[in-house]
Amino acid sequence: MPTLATMTTEDAADAFESAAVGVLPTGSTEQHGPALPLGMDHLAAEAFASAVADRDDTIVLPTIPVGVSPHHMQFDGSLTVSEETFTNYVSETISSVAEHGLSKVVIVNGHGGNVSALSRAARELRETQVAYAPTWNWWDAVADLADELFDEVGGHADASESSLIWHLHEELVEPDALEDAEGRGADGWGKTVHGSQIGFDTIDFTESGAVGKPSQASPEKGAQLYEEGVAELEALLEWLADRSVEDCWQRSHR
Amino acid sequence: MPTLATMTTEDAADAFESAAVGVLPTGSTEQHGPALPLGMDHLAAEAFASAVADRDDTIVLPTIPVGVSPHHMQFDGSLTVSEETFTNYVSETISSVAEHGLSKVVIVNGHGGNVSALSRAARELRETQVAYAPTWNWWDAVADLADELFDEVGGHADASESSLIWHLHEELVEPDALEDAEGRGADGWGKTVHGSQIGFDTIDFTESGAVGKPSQASPEKGAQLYEEGVAELEALLEWLADRSVEDCWQRSHR
Amino acid sequence: MPTLATMTTEDAADAFESAAVGVLPTGSTEQHGPALPLGMDHLAAEAFASAVADRDDTIVLPTIPVGVSPHHMQFDGSLTVSEETFTNYVSETISSVAEHGLSKVVIVNGHGGNVSALSRAARELRETQVAYAPTWNWWDAVADLADELFDEVGGHADASESSLIWHLHEELVEPDALEDAEGRGADGWGKTVHGSQIGFDTIDFTESGAVGKPSQASPEKGAQLYEEGVAELEALLEWLADRSVEDCWQRSHR
Amino acid sequence: MPTLATMTTEDAADAFESAAVGVLPTGSTEQHGPALPLGMDHLAAEAFASAVADRDDTIVLPTIPVGVSPHHMQFDGSLTVSEETFTNYVSETISSVAEHGLSKVVIVNGHGGNVSALSRAARELRETQVAYAPTWNWWDAVADLADELFDEVGGHADASESSLIWHLHEELVEPDALEDAEGRGADGWGKTVHGSQIGFDTIDFTESGAVGKPSQASPEKGAQLYEEGVAELEALLEWLADRSVEDCWQRSHR
Amino acid sequence: MPTLATMTTEDAADAFESAAVGVLPTGSTEQHGPALPLGMDHLAAEAFASAVADRDDTIVLPTIPVGVSPHHMQFDGSLTVSEETFTNYVSETISSVAEHGLSKVVIVNGHGGNVSALSRAARELRETQVAYAPTWNWWDAVADLADELFDEVGGHADASESSLIWHLHEELVEPDALEDAEGRGADGWGKTVHGSQIGFDTIDFTESGAVGKPSQASPEKGAQLYEEGVAELEALLEWLADRSVEDCWQRSHR
Amino acid sequence: MPTLATMTTEDAADAFESAAVGVLPTGSTEQHGPALPLGMDHLAAEAFASAVADRDDTIVLPTIPVGVSPHHMQFDGSLTVSEETFTNYVSETISSVAEHGLSKVVIVNGHGGNVSALSRAARELRETQVAYAPTWNWWDAVADLADELFDEVGGHADASESSLIWHLHEELVEPDALEDAEGRGADGWGKTVHGSQIGFDTIDFTESGAVGKPSQASPEKGAQLYEEGVAELEALLEWLADRSVEDCWQRSHR
Repeated sequence: MPTLATMTTEDAADAFESAAVGVLPTGSTEQHGPALPLGMDHLAAEAFASAVADRDDTIVLPTIPVGVSPHHMQFDGSLTVSEETFTNYVSETISSVAEHGLSKVVIVNGHGGNVSALSRAARELRETQVAYAPTWNWWDAVADLADELFDEVGGHADASESSLIWHLHEELVEPDALEDAEGRGADGWGKTVHGSQIGFDTIDFTESGAVGKPSQASPEKGAQLYEEGVAELEALLEWLADRSVEDCWQRSHR
Repeated sequence: MPTLATMTTEDAADAFESAAVGVLPTGSTEQHGPALPLGMDHLAAEAFASAVADRDDTIVLPTIPVGVSPHHMQFDGSLTVSEETFTNYVSETISSVAEHGLSKVVIVNGHGGNVSALSRAARELRETQVAYAPTWNWWDAVADLADELFDEVGGHADASESSLIWHLHEELVEPDALEDAEGRGADGWGKTVHGSQIGFDTIDFTESGAVGKPSQASPEKGAQLYEEGVAELEALLEWLADRSVEDCWQRSHR
Repeated sequence: MPTLATMTTEDAADAFESAAVGVLPTGSTEQHGPALPLGMDHLAAEAFASAVADRDDTIVLPTIPVGVSPHHMQFDGSLTVSEETFTNYVSETISSVAEHGLSKVVIVNGHGGNVSALSRAARELRETQVAYAPTWNWWDAVADLADELFDEVGGHADASESSLIWHLHEELVEPDALEDAEGRGADGWGKTVHGSQIGFDTIDFTESGAVGKPSQASPEKGAQLYEEGVAELEALLEWLADRSVEDCWQRSHR
Repeated sequence: MPTLATMTTEDAADAFESAAVGVLPTGSTEQHGPALPLGMDHLAAEAFASAVADRDDTIVLPTIPVGVSPHHMQFDGSLTVSEETFTNYVSETISSVAEHGLSKVVIVNGHGGNVSALSRAARELRETQVAYAPTWNWWDAVADLADELFDEVGGHADASESSLIWHLHEELVEPDALEDAEGRGADGWGKTVHGSQIGFDTIDFTESGAVGKPSQASPEKGAQLYEEGVAELEALLEWLADRSVEDCWQRSHR
Repeated sequence: MPTLATMTTEDAADAFESAAVGVLPTGSTEQHGPALPLGMDHLAAEAFASAVADRDDTIVLPTIPVGVSPHHMQFDGSLTVSEETFTNYVSETISSVAEHGLSKVVIVNGHGGNVSALSRAARELRETQVAYAPTWNWWDAVADLADELFDEVGGHADASESSLIWHLHEELVEPDALEDAEGRGADGWGKTVHGSQIGFDTIDFTESGAVGKPSQASPEKGAQLYEEGVAELEALLEWLADRSVEDCWQRSHR
Repeated sequence: MPTLATMTTEDAADAFESAAVGVLPTGSTEQHGPALPLGMDHLAAEAFASAVADRDDTIVLPTIPVGVSPHHMQFDGSLTVSEETFTNYVSETISSVAEHGLSKVVIVNGHGGNVSALSRAARELRETQVAYAPTWNWWDAVADLADELFDEVGGHADASESSLIWHLHEELVEPDALEDAEGRGADGWGKTVHGSQIGFDTIDFTESGAVGKPSQASPEKGAQLYEEGVAELEALLEWLADRSVEDCWQRSHR
């Protein structure tokens, strides 16, 4: 199926008739160190979503490009909205789709900072039986493969992200800067003192903005990640298409 | 300049150094009758924004694809967020840009339903001296030319919009449906009884979803509209680039 | 019928039994240039409402005197509340009336700055089937007559408003200042640069606060406008009284 | 001075130059039993305010007619807004006045249900040094006299209120219903069980809607109450006019 | 029954089966002059609640320790949350209990500043038929006894409060400071000028923070107050346990 | 030092003079399976806080007993407030402390569901330079020791929590039910399908409510965990006491 934005309202009427699941790509526009583009997270989400756009049971919605990124704002070009605003923007978009009869939606997400807001949105949509909208984070879906491919803890602009975007948008990556990203970066996310997470912003713990081992990245590994991710997403869509919406709703009190 | 999302944070640091004005495309995803795509409004905004993306003094931000469209929700595929959510999403995105030093932004808007929310956002940003962010509606900028080209009152999915999108995305237009859009459509916006606007939703006054004379549309006229619009937008950007931000702030009490 | 505020609760019980439509006058308290009173807009609304107060099918509610006027605040005496506060104040007042069984209300409005808030209130009241509450702006209802009487674009403290208030409250008008209002005023609303509305506040485009040709005003013309407006309002009330509330509710999805 | 709404903006400029205190009348539109008008509370506030309107140091603002009355909604004709909406409406109106240079305002209040909201508004305005806006409840100011005149606990539509409105608006009172108001009414406010206030709404404890001994009312006593109240209000305005705004602001931490 | 927090979820299942009423203790942490502990109000609420914890028909919920105390913030150690936050915290806690089947809850309150917020919470819970949750203020329940025991108007850290906490937590009272509390304190709450309450904060009218005659306090009198209060609370719980929830709901429109 | 609630305001004045760090215990009241008390999380937080209460540089605030637990509501006795309400309650409490001069606070947290809300509160308090308030989760501080002691992934009512509360409050644990908790429980948190977290509530993936291997618990291991946690917390408080508040504030834009 074409994406929703490219259909007429008459086409959409047919599409909603036959579709079983919606796909909403969400990401962010924020620093990803000196080698990767600011749009990394929404470009990744969009790429995974477009891979499943031709399915007959799936309608792909427009990509939401700005996410919850207050912790990146010391780095030029980072954009952010509040958690509340993002929650509402996503939740109301999904509610709109539900008004046309599609109450199962997979949020294909490219940004870790969105996860808490997406959980809140999904919880409320489920509680009120408006929609069932679990989040699919691409890095969770390919975690095993990433462990095989890279020797890193990672977390942001790491080997995994660098490889993926290199595969998807070679022209937007500056391979020469990957060493610098790693050199002035951090090994793992955050900064801990006696069990307390005291690093609130990325600038508290990484000078380049990167966290992980981006020097291990390659477009070939990115292709592997992408292929694996798409396969997982396809499987999820099939699983959800087959599940009745009644089975999706919140379980009642014991 | 490339668009913001395609820059690294290091590129963005340079870009913010030299840029004078930001451009934020906003639109909607909503019914535009049987002949035009749901994404009409954000595709139009994006097209005008991309035309000025190569200017050295301009940074183009990501397109915000879902707008304020509650009055279109009876038509399949229409998406909407509330006026408050949209206001916040836009306002916080512009505030982000201002944190990096760019406090003049033109909102290139493709959807009439967004105008009230954009005014509120702009007013508050100006009052607090965070940013000066006037809205540029493409149809206002080309109003004289549209009057020459078409014999319509119009207002939605009309000859003007149909021509523009036909020029920009021929593949998304269904020319055969333009007659039907007009035939089952309305001549002017809304429904008035003794001076009172009693039509709250488009479905209250148009069966096809269109308002105007789309049958007069042609891609050639769309090209004229686009060219004219781009010229106006360029002129606006130059005017704003030359204006000091102090001149932009709200005037003090008499 | 007497106005609601002058009835006892027992009288009100009877009144709600026989009434078909409520009338809520809304206006503002804000600058209207050097010749007209700050209360212009709520005085006008109140005058139109009181003209229909003696109808058996109509209950007139108290006048809401402060509206959405942030764009007038540089002029002494202007009062404003936020769009959200005004929307809630109006919406909750109408909901109260609906609790007593009257679910059709005409908002008789005297201030352009209120229109967006009133639309939002009315939309939500209709969506939730609490009440159907279209706005009646007096200037829309008398637009044709005003065009005959005056040669102006107008928009604020213009010949039309000046005439009306001169007729209604001669003692509050300073006729000698009408020339000055026009001389230091603007011809039309706002300030446009290359298609963009860049004037956010009235002070951005009018020194006197007036927009239009107030020197053309006369109390006789005001009387004509008033008479015409009252006739239109009466017709609207009759039309709405005859319409079943079911016919008023939002139309369902196509 | 004339009231604000009757001034032009030019007059207002002079008025704000010479004025020391603003006066904002607030009330409600709600049941006051079978004998008194629904507008009792805002009519009372308006009457006290208009008595001081001719002072040179005072500007009287428009009357806010709908207040916080959820506990009266089972009685026909009662209107209510939420505490939050009322707080905002009052607070933003007072903030507007402060923008023109008048930062001391007396809220002349006629409705007990508004008190909590008015305290919140006043606290916040004072904390932020926008304005100092204490509430003046007319019944508190005449409490001693009322104790002399009537033998009642009272609280709503009682002898005190009945007398006052009888004096102010004889045509709106139904004297024959005062006995009934008292007979089917309550002696004191609320309903208490073992120390707990369990009556949330007036209908929980009064059938007529009245609380007190309205049969003791007379227009002569109302005149006495009014005279006494006006004298107290005048004294308050003088006291406040003489007090510097610095003395009004919140005291600092110990 | 043990308190809720000490039960397992399995125990709670049984407890909710047999219980008829919940008890939610609420208080504050705020100055109570030089002789009493900051936790006075929540310690008092907790003490009354724990006295009824062993009833078979009652489940005691956790104590909410911080309340609405903005008027005490100039005194060291005072904590406050906004009225809105407190209302939500209480209301959502009670809603949680209602989800498990217990829809009658007595709020055992120790702080006057909470009363308005608790009323709002209770009103909304009742209107929506989620729960019936009247407030029990211990000082209201023992008002007659306090009048016998003390010769004071009182209001805060007075003889009544001092006696109670002396009885409950002797180790937290500094008896030597009671004279000073009274000497530098106020006789009655607030500061009135010509009928207007102009004292917004306690520091506006009491130097020590106390209001009343704490020098009259004794632990023996505190024991009497506590015993009386517990008896009243027991009686209230029995009364409420016997009342069907249908009888508790809001009465319908007349 | 005694805890804040037990001090008089005079004592508090001295305490704030000498203190360097505040401690705010936060937890929840929610199901912890058949063997552990509902108050587990706030009892744990309170126990760690009380262990450091005697430090001269530390002021311990009251325990906040109800947290963000919507995912446990199908289990009897669970209480929850919304993320927004909890964020505000915590944030305003910490702001209160800051008003008395203490702007460094450690949130000693016992509930995973609170973490997102606490991060938001802390971020905003830091951005506005009101306070620096990092969260200390006890399970993070003792993670290494827990890995040594137990062979579990865990996550809720697991061996670690069971041991701790067994040590702290032996009387509240039902050791016989630990086997059942584990038998009908889950090994790890949540439920994942093709990379998507589809289990929103605990009841979606654990029948008993427990997640982990509680049968490995013992009070002796709990004592070890507690001792280790207290040592870490002490070290954190010392580290923070030595750090100037200027070093704590958010880093500026690159």
